[in-house]
Amino acid sequence: MEQRVGELAVDTAGRGLVDITRRLKDWVAEQRIGTGLLTLWCRHTSASLIVQENASPEVRTDLEDFLQRLVPDGGGARYRHDEEGPDDMPAHIRAVLTSVQLSIPIRSGRPALGTWQAVYLYEHRLRPHRRMLDLHLIGEGG
Amino acid sequence: MEQRVGELAVDTAGRGLVDITRRLKDWVAEQRIGTGLLTLWCRHTSASLIVQENASPEVRTDLEDFLQRLVPDGGGARYRHDEEGPDDMPAHIRAVLTSVQLSIPIRSGRPALGTWQAVYLYEHRLRPHRRMLDLHLIGEGG
Amino acid sequence: MEQRVGELAVDTAGRGLVDITRRLKDWVAEQRIGTGLLTLWCRHTSASLIVQENASPEVRTDLEDFLQRLVPDGGGARYRHDEEGPDDMPAHIRAVLTSVQLSIPIRSGRPALGTWQAVYLYEHRLRPHRRMLDLHLIGEGG
Repeated sequence: MEQRVGELAVDTAGRGLVDITRRLKDWVAEQRIGTGLLTLWCRHTSASLIVQENASPEVRTDLEDFLQRLVPDGGGARYRHDEEGPDDMPAHIRAVLTSVQLSIPIRSGRPALGTWQAVYLYEHRLRPHRRMLDLHLIGEGG
Repeated sequence: MEQRVGELAVDTAGRGLVDITRRLKDWVAEQRIGTGLLTLWCRHTSASLIVQENASPEVRTDLEDFLQRLVPDGGGARYRHDEEGPDDMPAHIRAVLTSVQLSIPIRSGRPALGTWQAVYLYEHRLRPHRRMLDLHLIGEGG
Repeated sequence: MEQRVGELAVDTAGRGLVDITRRLKDWVAEQRIGTGLLTLWCRHTSASLIVQENASPEVRTDLEDFLQRLVPDGGGARYRHDEEGPDDMPAHIRAVLTSVQLSIPIRSGRPALGTWQAVYLYEHRLRPHRRMLDLHLIGEGG
């Protein structure tokens, strides 16, 4: 059994989803591990990870609309914590409601995603950020 | 250290919870691994995995009622994405708010669930579907 | 490759967050595994695990306020399941919307948390409880 570790820097364009599926597949392919478990860890509290449909861009727009209604932006009138602006506290809440970690089985050297599944980093802040993901892979059989 | 992989096909009766705890326990028992980590991956974007109380059926009804209020069904007036009907986009959102992955420690050849915990596949679409779960187990000591 | 298992008992003071980061770091340090994967499993259906900012206490207050608005407490008028009181069913729903499991990569013998990340057990019931976490660590290289 072997382990691999890595990092992925994801530059976001502000609030919204960044598809990281291709980069994950490429990283896993380089590790020469056929069967195993890939874990992604998002090192932030205002960005997160989700798995969603990769086909229709409307799904991403509807999801963002839903989250904006569920967790409205707002400053001191709505939240105590607003040091970094009206999107500060909503970003923390959105990160809690989604996830900062995913573990994906590896089969034949590839993440075992369903046909329609893509992995996204979700930037919850309005401004662009560089987000860091920690990667861990355990398995064997390249 | 050893690995095992498998698949679980779960036939749903439409929207609602399917208890898969027994099937998971049976699968793990067959693998002859005493201590390890079991990972479940749901290959869909409109079904997901949750852990909830196995005693009271009212808990599942209340949870479903809550999610229907939180993420109302609706067609084009409410969501851009409604190709497959008014439960299409809500199913995607519900999947994001719950989880497509669970990793459960294995102790003495069994998932280390609490007394009241059961693992459910949550079908978010109104119609029945066959859902596929990917299983990964790593560990040793049968 | 080696495995370690453990348990963590967390005494809560009623609804709210308990920072368990220090205890997790201490437990991992004792295991003498440099690179690996730590999995936490919360054995309950009315408490859960989250990762959030460790700096501002206001973040935790705002998060709790948000969850109380999203999932209001209430007895039989609001929920079918209220055997243990008006915080019973809301606690189950809050656990589903957050998470009962986290898997954190281990680097240089420490959880690879971001600078501002802390791991919290979230007690969703109003009264104090003793909550049990199952710990699993796999890896090597002390």
